[in-house]
Amino acid sequence: MSTFGRAFRVTTYGESHCPSVGCIIDGCPPGMKLTEADIQPQLTRRRPGQSALTTPRDEKDRVQIQSGTESGITLGTPIGLMVKNEDQRPHDYKGDTMAGFPRPSHADYTYQEKYGVRASSGGGRSSARETIARVASGAIAEKYLSLVHGVEIVAFVSSVGNEELFPPTSTHPTPSTNPIFLKLLDTITREEVDHPDYLPVRCPNKEAATRMSDKIAEFRDKKDSIGGTVTCVIRNCPVGIGEPCFDKIEACLAQGMLSIPATKGFEIGSGFGGCAVPGSLNNDAFVSSVPVAPSQSGVDASPDAPPEPITNGAKPRSNRLKTKTNNSGGVQGGISNGAHIYFRVGFKPPATIGQAQNTVDFEGKEGVLEAKGRHDPCVVPRAVAIVEAMAALVVMDAVMTQSSRQSMRDALQDRG
Amino acid sequence: MSTFGRAFRVTTYGESHCPSVGCIIDGCPPGMKLTEADIQPQLTRRRPGQSALTTPRDEKDRVQIQSGTESGITLGTPIGLMVKNEDQRPHDYKGDTMAGFPRPSHADYTYQEKYGVRASSGGGRSSARETIARVASGAIAEKYLSLVHGVEIVAFVSSVGNEELFPPTSTHPTPSTNPIFLKLLDTITREEVDHPDYLPVRCPNKEAATRMSDKIAEFRDKKDSIGGTVTCVIRNCPVGIGEPCFDKIEACLAQGMLSIPATKGFEIGSGFGGCAVPGSLNNDAFVSSVPVAPSQSGVDASPDAPPEPITNGAKPRSNRLKTKTNNSGGVQGGISNGAHIYFRVGFKPPATIGQAQNTVDFEGKEGVLEAKGRHDPCVVPRAVAIVEAMAALVVMDAVMTQSSRQSMRDALQDRG
Amino acid sequence: MSTFGRAFRVTTYGESHCPSVGCIIDGCPPGMKLTEADIQPQLTRRRPGQSALTTPRDEKDRVQIQSGTESGITLGTPIGLMVKNEDQRPHDYKGDTMAGFPRPSHADYTYQEKYGVRASSGGGRSSARETIARVASGAIAEKYLSLVHGVEIVAFVSSVGNEELFPPTSTHPTPSTNPIFLKLLDTITREEVDHPDYLPVRCPNKEAATRMSDKIAEFRDKKDSIGGTVTCVIRNCPVGIGEPCFDKIEACLAQGMLSIPATKGFEIGSGFGGCAVPGSLNNDAFVSSVPVAPSQSGVDASPDAPPEPITNGAKPRSNRLKTKTNNSGGVQGGISNGAHIYFRVGFKPPATIGQAQNTVDFEGKEGVLEAKGRHDPCVVPRAVAIVEAMAALVVMDAVMTQSSRQSMRDALQDRG
Amino acid sequence: MSTFGRAFRVTTYGESHCPSVGCIIDGCPPGMKLTEADIQPQLTRRRPGQSALTTPRDEKDRVQIQSGTESGITLGTPIGLMVKNEDQRPHDYKGDTMAGFPRPSHADYTYQEKYGVRASSGGGRSSARETIARVASGAIAEKYLSLVHGVEIVAFVSSVGNEELFPPTSTHPTPSTNPIFLKLLDTITREEVDHPDYLPVRCPNKEAATRMSDKIAEFRDKKDSIGGTVTCVIRNCPVGIGEPCFDKIEACLAQGMLSIPATKGFEIGSGFGGCAVPGSLNNDAFVSSVPVAPSQSGVDASPDAPPEPITNGAKPRSNRLKTKTNNSGGVQGGISNGAHIYFRVGFKPPATIGQAQNTVDFEGKEGVLEAKGRHDPCVVPRAVAIVEAMAALVVMDAVMTQSSRQSMRDALQDRG
Repeated sequence: MSTFGRAFRVTTYGESHCPSVGCIIDGCPPGMKLTEADIQPQLTRRRPGQSALTTPRDEKDRVQIQSGTESGITLGTPIGLMVKNEDQRPHDYKGDTMAGFPRPSHADYTYQEKYGVRASSGGGRSSARETIARVASGAIAEKYLSLVHGVEIVAFVSSVGNEELFPPTSTHPTPSTNPIFLKLLDTITREEVDHPDYLPVRCPNKEAATRMSDKIAEFRDKKDSIGGTVTCVIRNCPVGIGEPCFDKIEACLAQGMLSIPATKGFEIGSGFGGCAVPGSLNNDAFVSSVPVAPSQSGVDASPDAPPEPITNGAKPRSNRLKTKTNNSGGVQGGISNGAHIYFRVGFKPPATIGQAQNTVDFEGKEGVLEAKGRHDPCVVPRAVAIVEAMAALVVMDAVMTQSSRQSMRDALQDRG
Repeated sequence: MSTFGRAFRVTTYGESHCPSVGCIIDGCPPGMKLTEADIQPQLTRRRPGQSALTTPRDEKDRVQIQSGTESGITLGTPIGLMVKNEDQRPHDYKGDTMAGFPRPSHADYTYQEKYGVRASSGGGRSSARETIARVASGAIAEKYLSLVHGVEIVAFVSSVGNEELFPPTSTHPTPSTNPIFLKLLDTITREEVDHPDYLPVRCPNKEAATRMSDKIAEFRDKKDSIGGTVTCVIRNCPVGIGEPCFDKIEACLAQGMLSIPATKGFEIGSGFGGCAVPGSLNNDAFVSSVPVAPSQSGVDASPDAPPEPITNGAKPRSNRLKTKTNNSGGVQGGISNGAHIYFRVGFKPPATIGQAQNTVDFEGKEGVLEAKGRHDPCVVPRAVAIVEAMAALVVMDAVMTQSSRQSMRDALQDRG
Repeated sequence: MSTFGRAFRVTTYGESHCPSVGCIIDGCPPGMKLTEADIQPQLTRRRPGQSALTTPRDEKDRVQIQSGTESGITLGTPIGLMVKNEDQRPHDYKGDTMAGFPRPSHADYTYQEKYGVRASSGGGRSSARETIARVASGAIAEKYLSLVHGVEIVAFVSSVGNEELFPPTSTHPTPSTNPIFLKLLDTITREEVDHPDYLPVRCPNKEAATRMSDKIAEFRDKKDSIGGTVTCVIRNCPVGIGEPCFDKIEACLAQGMLSIPATKGFEIGSGFGGCAVPGSLNNDAFVSSVPVAPSQSGVDASPDAPPEPITNGAKPRSNRLKTKTNNSGGVQGGISNGAHIYFRVGFKPPATIGQAQNTVDFEGKEGVLEAKGRHDPCVVPRAVAIVEAMAALVVMDAVMTQSSRQSMRDALQDRG
Repeated sequence: MSTFGRAFRVTTYGESHCPSVGCIIDGCPPGMKLTEADIQPQLTRRRPGQSALTTPRDEKDRVQIQSGTESGITLGTPIGLMVKNEDQRPHDYKGDTMAGFPRPSHADYTYQEKYGVRASSGGGRSSARETIARVASGAIAEKYLSLVHGVEIVAFVSSVGNEELFPPTSTHPTPSTNPIFLKLLDTITREEVDHPDYLPVRCPNKEAATRMSDKIAEFRDKKDSIGGTVTCVIRNCPVGIGEPCFDKIEACLAQGMLSIPATKGFEIGSGFGGCAVPGSLNNDAFVSSVPVAPSQSGVDASPDAPPEPITNGAKPRSNRLKTKTNNSGGVQGGISNGAHIYFRVGFKPPATIGQAQNTVDFEGKEGVLEAKGRHDPCVVPRAVAIVEAMAALVVMDAVMTQSSRQSMRDALQDRG
């Protein structure tokens, strides 16, 4: 299905070579300032070929708001977004011997089997262009979350191939107990991630960024590709977000992330590493949130709160606790506890490589497939914006659902 | 939300200490034989305390079908399932000093913040009893999938703490290329997983099972707990299952798995390991499915097909391809390709431990929490049945969605 | 589908002769007092055979809360409700010559065609017992709406056959302009509807009730049946409820009402009659709501407001307007305007009649069908409770959706 | 919510004065021929001002397919449709004294209360331009239904004010028993409805069309407006469509119709009239469909079947019955029985009239509102295309849902 979310609903359309890609966002709160300028920056961050950009102004992938705003203010009605495709259906693969070959680890074969028909050019619906609508709608969700709750969502590259930002050590088999990692989660910003020192890899550590950059270059030169991981932190997420049972916040994040093309894994908090340690180490003991001076220790799970308590129109909660550690990744029982939500997403090496691959065509006849042109040897630097967008969509949807519950409950208490 | 699935919809209810837990299954195909006997075995496999069972017949957690069948045949109408709770609201925690303490890494605190109220006993809605409804409904999905498509879903324990069934080696950093692992995926059955040699751990290798069993005993004796991972394989999944974009089959599996209590991570196919290798290694080249003799090689991704081609009422597909390797885990572009779907799920160490824990009460006052009684030091052996159930629900839902598309398309071609 | 609502979601199960009927209510606000005693009265009102009751206490159709409350307070988790069927699968129609005959204007034939199988006894899923779950869940919605918004939902019988409570006149071709009708909408209560003078018909006018009662008796004596209409008013519905486009409040009401067994029509406000008059008469001009003394005129669309303005945690709206007339039935552009929402629902004569009917069996062989036993010659008196319940479900769902929007918007303005 | 349907899902966007209106259709079967030419005719039929058209080619409201097709074939992926607004946000109502007045019986006031903000020009989201997306997507649904099932959906004007096509008579208080009406349902086509004799009213009877046309002219000249009704028939609808309980086919039709702007009522089959007659008259007795010569009697509910039995890939049903009469309107128990589905929809007189109206502004200050320019005095002639579109969306969605069930069941029987 091409719809994500229940309360903040994003429905997307578009193939790689049709007239446009876009989406409809249904459920955006009315009265919020919104123009294309709020959306464009993340679209630009997700664009391919960024490291090779030489012209300062890039006019590509411009989003156009079709509806749902007037004079730069949201009306509460569906927001239509459109991004024109520049490369519209120009290809005729007839006569191209490669056209009969489903590309290995691409979706050509499965689309053909599923639909009995498929777009002739590029990836069609499975193309990465589909993520444009995710990034555009995520930017809108994020604007609301930032304005009202001070939510900050920042993703960065945590590994390329086996080059890791935080390689496992005997003390810290998983970064979730590593104070340097936890400090990074406290402070990292998108501006930092995009610092020239860290580009084009978007790994916020110069030494690691260099290792990763070299690794990508190595595989590019071999006409091969390489995978990697993206780590994302959500700060200031309101407490109480996420629905028990099937729509736990981590379950929704997992769906959101695994729905991004090329993803292979998701882990939250201490993740798979936390599954190898004892409960006595992994449990997050509670501490009072009142007497603790804000953020004085690296392992303090709860960051500076936004300036004033935000209660979304609801009665203020009196006694919020914090946790001493944050192996849970900000979530307990599927519901946010106010600590940073952080998680890691694995991306496979891009399937399109310049090397020759022995494979068969749709009829089962053997042949050799060799991709022409330049191909992206590693997607994680661009994926950063997509991971952030999907995180924003998940959180916004959960905030709206909880907002309804909370206001319904508060109204009840007023009548108590 | 307490509903899972769009076409095969399961809605669950129940806290740990209310009169009953159960669910309504809406969308089950009519005309299928179904009695409680189809559902009970998996419920029994998920029961706690199995290793300590001495009585051959265990009358607990008996499921009762409330509606949707007549004379043992499904009517196509909603199936109501009910399992009585034996321990109904007997506790009055007033006066119990522990009651004021939210248990670390449990959902007590987050439920209280979310709802402003919570069940006084046990985990309430966050209790593992909630998974009864998942297992019961999964058994129904599974029966259909097995009857019609020969689908086989088998999960087993792949690690406890750092004791792994397939420890990473330099040749096989991830099991997805290990022929022994791939052979296991081809052949493993639930009967084997439940073989006395492998119980109570449910790891299908005697040596590994012993290591794991010792590890669990060690933590039990320390009044501590330990996490682990479960690996699951889905065989004979029809080609073309899974919806592009947000409802990719791996995205739905990820949501399903991360919605199980205590889960921390999900990876499909070569998973996080596959994100560290080059595309030239990770890509799954296609081979013709016709000339290859069935299953003669361990790395043959496609198992013995069911006796006759099953086309779900649709035109038979003429030329199915296979893949030489299966690092994709049976999914490309979010859509099944006919190879085994396999994935791994990480479970954290149980949060309830007998050791004393320094923490604070709801008011922020410090204290020491010490759980009384016997606690399960490791959940993965029981989780096997829950993972299988959630996998069945995901696949069934996707099969129904595709079945609609395929029959609509076939009808169109008949008229073409 | 057996689920109604998006935010306040009711999923039902049950056939006429299975062990129980019931439902799961997902999304009920936490912290509300709720016991079976809140639900039972409406269940009792919908029971068949009420006019013949002689025993004061009727122990039938007792609802049992399975989950979602503790100590009589809602937890915010799914509420499971169950009502046992007393007549469980006792019939074996083998040998019964009538069993092969699909009953005319019943669902026997269409269920058989749809599912290829059907319940052998009674109406199965199409039985009126299915409405038990509607009435039970509606009672919960209604309790919230009443507590928080002072919402009052009252339905009554407005016609039986051609006996009408407000027969069309040349001055008032439709009751919507009739001051007596409008006054009735202002004041009618369930207690009044159930006044002995108006029972068993539930038409709140003694003369009309007698005409209707005679009409029903006439058709009962002829072993025939007769249809009728139910009119329903919703008072104190918050302004701003209902979603533009497809989920207009009248569209949701129409779906809700037409989903009740035996319904054939729905009209809101001036309804079909309003479609025959000029816009200059049908338009509802606005008047200020401030200077007008409360409820001093019969045509005052807006009733006494609840004691204090209720804003659901949101900023108070400063300048509410009223309408001079209420031909719109309280809805403009699909959104409530604060005036009474009122509508009429048509119920066909019950299909089961004692008279002999010439028809054919499932094989197409001609025969005569004659129903045995006593049959309800008119359903509208009982339908009153079902119409009220469906109205409550529609309004509650819309209130929750708007509540989310409003609290999201208010939070935005706080930050503005 | 701006989405309609579960399987064939249409999500719409657009205000009256934003850059474009449009929709995304998710779930359209792949492999169907589709170009703009399939969609444009119905868009043209719904355009305003048709009676005044003098130029043969009208270039307005041109639909553009954005995605989901290639080379004129549907891909099975979301179909994006866009229609540019020609009149984009040109108005600045500042200084216009009318701007402060919510128009009586329009949505200005309720939108303002609901959202706290509203589009300054025209009706915004509540404008009739919103129906463009309905008509466009309905045309796609209809194409499939026509190709595969021979479904024919035809709507026509059945009354304007109190001028009726079939005025009630003592013999036929409701048209459902009138042979002339039933014959019309058998045979009426869109071509006929658009016959010059019946334009611009679209009432397929010259005498009645003239009466209606005169009535409209009368109200136009009085600067007033007038309502009316549209009757719609769906022929060749497959048996077994519609889901029991909440999604009965008539419940979905009722929602669809009442979601069209300006609608006030819906009735199916014998409708409200059927609620005034005895069951012995209203019941539809079954007859065998085999021996009866096709369509030889006017009251034969079941029309000529399409040339060959269409089973949607499913096992053919052996013994379809028909009904002797069709007071049920083709639906029993919420499920189609193969007879014509027919229903009537009431449209109120347009709220915008040239006459002066005494009303108040948003602040409650009294004033006189007088609409400038030309206004449509009656919407029913244009509404015909919208009613047909919504009917197509409802039927298509139900067909897809049943198609899934049927193919799942057939697959089960193959394995039985």
